[in-house]
Amino acid sequence: MNLSQRARDIQESPIRKLAAVANAAKARGTSVYHLNIGQPDIPTPPEFFAGIRDFPEPVLAYGPSNGLPELRQAMADYFGRFDIPLTPDQIIITTGGSEAVAFAMNAVTDPGDEVIIPEPFYTNYNGYSALSGVRIVPVTTNAESGYHLPDPRKIEALITPRTRAIMICSPNNPTGTVFSESEIRALGELARRHDLFLIADEVYKEFTYEGASHFSILQLAGLEDRVIVLDSISKRYSACGARIGAVICRNPQIMGAIMKFAQARLCPPTLEQIGAIAAYALPQDYFASIREEYQKRRDILVDTLTANPEVMLRKPEGAFYVMATLPVKDSDDYARWMLDSFSHQGETVMVAPGAGFYSSPGRGKQEVRIAYVLEAPKLKRACELLLRGIEEYNQKS
Amino acid sequence: MNLSQRARDIQESPIRKLAAVANAAKARGTSVYHLNIGQPDIPTPPEFFAGIRDFPEPVLAYGPSNGLPELRQAMADYFGRFDIPLTPDQIIITTGGSEAVAFAMNAVTDPGDEVIIPEPFYTNYNGYSALSGVRIVPVTTNAESGYHLPDPRKIEALITPRTRAIMICSPNNPTGTVFSESEIRALGELARRHDLFLIADEVYKEFTYEGASHFSILQLAGLEDRVIVLDSISKRYSACGARIGAVICRNPQIMGAIMKFAQARLCPPTLEQIGAIAAYALPQDYFASIREEYQKRRDILVDTLTANPEVMLRKPEGAFYVMATLPVKDSDDYARWMLDSFSHQGETVMVAPGAGFYSSPGRGKQEVRIAYVLEAPKLKRACELLLRGIEEYNQKS
Repeated sequence: MNLSQRARDIQESPIRKLAAVANAAKARGTSVYHLNIGQPDIPTPPEFFAGIRDFPEPVLAYGPSNGLPELRQAMADYFGRFDIPLTPDQIIITTGGSEAVAFAMNAVTDPGDEVIIPEPFYTNYNGYSALSGVRIVPVTTNAESGYHLPDPRKIEALITPRTRAIMICSPNNPTGTVFSESEIRALGELARRHDLFLIADEVYKEFTYEGASHFSILQLAGLEDRVIVLDSISKRYSACGARIGAVICRNPQIMGAIMKFAQARLCPPTLEQIGAIAAYALPQDYFASIREEYQKRRDILVDTLTANPEVMLRKPEGAFYVMATLPVKDSDDYARWMLDSFSHQGETVMVAPGAGFYSSPGRGKQEVRIAYVLEAPKLKRACELLLRGIEEYNQKS
Repeated sequence: MNLSQRARDIQESPIRKLAAVANAAKARGTSVYHLNIGQPDIPTPPEFFAGIRDFPEPVLAYGPSNGLPELRQAMADYFGRFDIPLTPDQIIITTGGSEAVAFAMNAVTDPGDEVIIPEPFYTNYNGYSALSGVRIVPVTTNAESGYHLPDPRKIEALITPRTRAIMICSPNNPTGTVFSESEIRALGELARRHDLFLIADEVYKEFTYEGASHFSILQLAGLEDRVIVLDSISKRYSACGARIGAVICRNPQIMGAIMKFAQARLCPPTLEQIGAIAAYALPQDYFASIREEYQKRRDILVDTLTANPEVMLRKPEGAFYVMATLPVKDSDDYARWMLDSFSHQGETVMVAPGAGFYSSPGRGKQEVRIAYVLEAPKLKRACELLLRGIEEYNQKS
């Protein structure tokens, strides 16, 4: 009567594993600034809640496995604003972007297969690959080159007979890097040449700064059969708790397979889809002030943290994360210490240790991922606590 | 660039695969009575919707990965009504009972492992086992013995070194059988003797008729470490679209593993959990009239269908399903024909073909699963259409 190997293999979320330590700090009366998790404080559009309040049915019934047709149409219309033509049939609604990752992985890989992913990468890809028995082959990127991709030949050298897909996230979680059109085209070329799928997590599409613009893999002509996009409303409409995402693909075989996965779990939540339909009806300029707000926060974060010349980070081009290298030996220990031993005027800060965002052993030990999801004064204070904590932490050891 | 083997292996849901054919029938103007899916027409408690309408937060944020503490407490209180003591730590909220199945399977099995399940069984177990790479070893039960379990020695004979668990559903979907206390105790004894987990899907707990009473595997003393219960509010509170379920287990190692799976998908939907908290506050006598209503429907179904002496079924003891053996050679073909070729006064009926509820090849070809989830007059009419369809179907061939 043992746990399965996969249950032992799957890592704890580095974003969430310190939750119990944070709760203990709160129980002691310490306030915790959460920079560990991409939970925006931007209000969810009131239209979302209004849509749900107006639900007219007496029975909250199962919906279609691929999602409500009205929501799939609303998403298709949304992509139309970016001149990306899609039909509702090319969209399957998932329970969060998380399920979109799982569905895409399971559709294109079997246990033992490989997926090439630039690292650092969104930590939950580790979780899904452990569950799917898939090996992540990392393309290491680094702060010096802005976490942009290396020469395509370096990526090509990682392709083996077991490689099934190249997977990216742009704008990137956890680095904030926005891959350029030419980087994306180079990946498309590799996918074509080596008969691979190209998967992109594009949930931060709207969040690009200073003219950096997002190029979607859906814009790659001639690769329609190979391209799978993972999407979500969590960040777009600040509705993380809704658990509404999507898989987007123009390959009918892939969509047929994903539909079978979708049927096995019956349907995504109904009410939250209705809220999402209302959110997608918002005009695209809804994002302008939000983008401005995030850019302001990004600048405060960078300005505040770089006051310590030993903190290394680069200004992110998109999303709302930054990977920062701290002058500590073990960011996991530091992050825990900040919660269980540090406080200043009754406050401390929680960050996500970096190692969990890498699959290469030993990498990320000095890094932390910081989400700039708090309003400006709180964010500034949280960054100051982080710096103060580093000093005390290094003195005590 | 091929589909994965698992994508090719996973079956289409026999409950949902005819959805497109049904939609085509509706597009032609034919009304379709849905006996194919366990979607009750009982109103969702107004308290559920009211709880959601009163959501006071401006941001729909991520919740805890294991679910809202208030919901876990409400579920623990609910089990207390049955003298089953549980703490909130022994409950992890899932996105529907479907996710509970996946989490439990992944926690106790690796690819190639075996789980023993009485067949016919809830068809989605096939889906999850295909995704998990797990082999379902069926214990065939039959209508003659009321789909009750065979002698435990027959089950014991199926145990191999790869067997990790015995899994049941009681009250049963698709047969309506309620396993007796002594059947459950015998399975517990097998689990103890062969060092296995015992998993039970108990989502139909409330729905037992004529004094049949549900015995939970959580009531087995001394097996606390081995017992995992899968639960859901979908049927209990007629809230299938909410996607709120739970895994319940007193083994901290299992719960630790499932917590890691839960973190990888972040959290279950927040608003629907708030609705569920309100539903669980209803007194247990809320179920009395619902149970009575289902029992009435069951009797109408049995009375109407047995008017044709070639239709074989037994009166179910619980849940709201029956497996009926029809005088047709291929129930898959019959079910499809009912949608694409049959109508009477502009109406037809949709049932779920039986083969998908078995893993033994060739079984279930004459059976269909019928869900008695429509109010009495509609159910009667639907059953009459089913009988009329059989006659026409057999005449045309």
